Amino acid sequence: MPQNPLISRRERLVSARLCVLVDGGSSVAACAEQVAAIAAAGAGLIQLRDKSLDDATLLERAIAAVGAARRHGALVVINDRPDIAVAAAADGVHLGAGDLPVLAARRVVGSARLIGRTAHCFAEATAAMADAADYLGIGPCFPSDTKTFASFAPRDFLQAVAAEIALPAFAIGGITPQRLPELAALGLTRVAVAAGVTKAPDPAAAVAAFHDALSRTS
Amino acid sequence: MPQNPLISRRERLVSARLCVLVDGGSSVAACAEQVAAIAAAGAGLIQLRDKSLDDATLLERAIAAVGAARRHGALVVINDRPDIAVAAAADGVHLGAGDLPVLAARRVVGSARLIGRTAHCFAEATAAMADAADYLGIGPCFPSDTKTFASFAPRDFLQAVAAEIALPAFAIGGITPQRLPELAALGLTRVAVAAGVTKAPDPAAAVAAFHDALSRTS
Repeated sequence: MPQNPLISRRERLVSARLCVLVDGGSSVAACAEQVAAIAAAGAGLIQLRDKSLDDATLLERAIAAVGAARRHGALVVINDRPDIAVAAAADGVHLGAGDLPVLAARRVVGSARLIGRTAHCFAEATAAMADAADYLGIGPCFPSDTKTFASFAPRDFLQAVAAEIALPAFAIGGITPQRLPELAALGLTRVAVAAGVTKAPDPAAAVAAFHDALSRTS
Repeated sequence: MPQNPLISRRERLVSARLCVLVDGGSSVAACAEQVAAIAAAGAGLIQLRDKSLDDATLLERAIAAVGAARRHGALVVINDRPDIAVAAAADGVHLGAGDLPVLAARRVVGSARLIGRTAHCFAEATAAMADAADYLGIGPCFPSDTKTFASFAPRDFLQAVAAEIALPAFAIGGITPQRLPELAALGLTRVAVAAGVTKAPDPAAAVAAFHDALSRTS
């Protein structure tokens, strides 16, 4: 459904249970098409993450992604780059290790945009909350077919975030619909997925499968 | 001399005739020390340019550079990254090919910060002026001992920028004090230098040598 301007970004963030990470695609049109399909299928949060593009090209893809997502009520955050988020009128930025600190990014994006932060341990999660990040990405949770992880997030860390950190937390890393009950048992009801959606034969069907499985865990 | 807060960034930019490009150095202290030496010697504009550092480290170096330069009245711009410029409270950003467009960067840095733009042809220079860039970098002008250039800026382009573009224009690429009369004959009285200062045995003396030569060409 189209975005309702009376519902704030933070309200929509709280409603989002599936974050899909997309790259910039092979063209502006391909990027817009992919994002539109994923947003129309109901993903509430889309993260544009592409370290292979130069800044001018990344901005073009970001603008296309924001336009496509907005028509379907989905939020778009830009990985790493608060400046691209502002220039593309995106909904926020996602920060990982080595990126700008949350407080520095806040100076750039202002108070109305979202800042997500990857946390690999409880201290990083509490620091992100203290710095007024808007949401967390936590993981990696499971082995993945498309990415090799050096280590996995301890289950007591995932559980502690769910129990004690008052921010939406998206579990990431090797997430499949089949693994959602295990996460739900830890208290985690939001997930972030990349290839599990974007490289699926039918990305919209993959989004629907995640949503179906998420609805059965809440 | 220390920065006078009653003199705007654009007034100080117009006064600047030497821009020195520095990298982030081996530590925050090394970065601050280098920038302080160059600023104390009288360079009016310092560009921090370091593609090897992660964003968090680049921000730390940028904050150090801004503090060191400000004590001596020099401006600091950050290469490529309007977000780092804002987060470090720098004076502006310098944009090259593939970076964000000037108008996009303006959304990030606001109207009070400077935006510099590299131009390799007259069309790029006029576009930068139309987009309200604050200054130009034009070149590469001469062969350099430290960098290999595929081609050089045509002399009629350099001359046309000096004559027709109402923005401060810094000639860059292989600039030495000995080459300033040739640039002055084209109408160019501002230069940007990297290794010619930073790799000199005495960077402060190199700045002084450039200023001395610049004063003889105006």
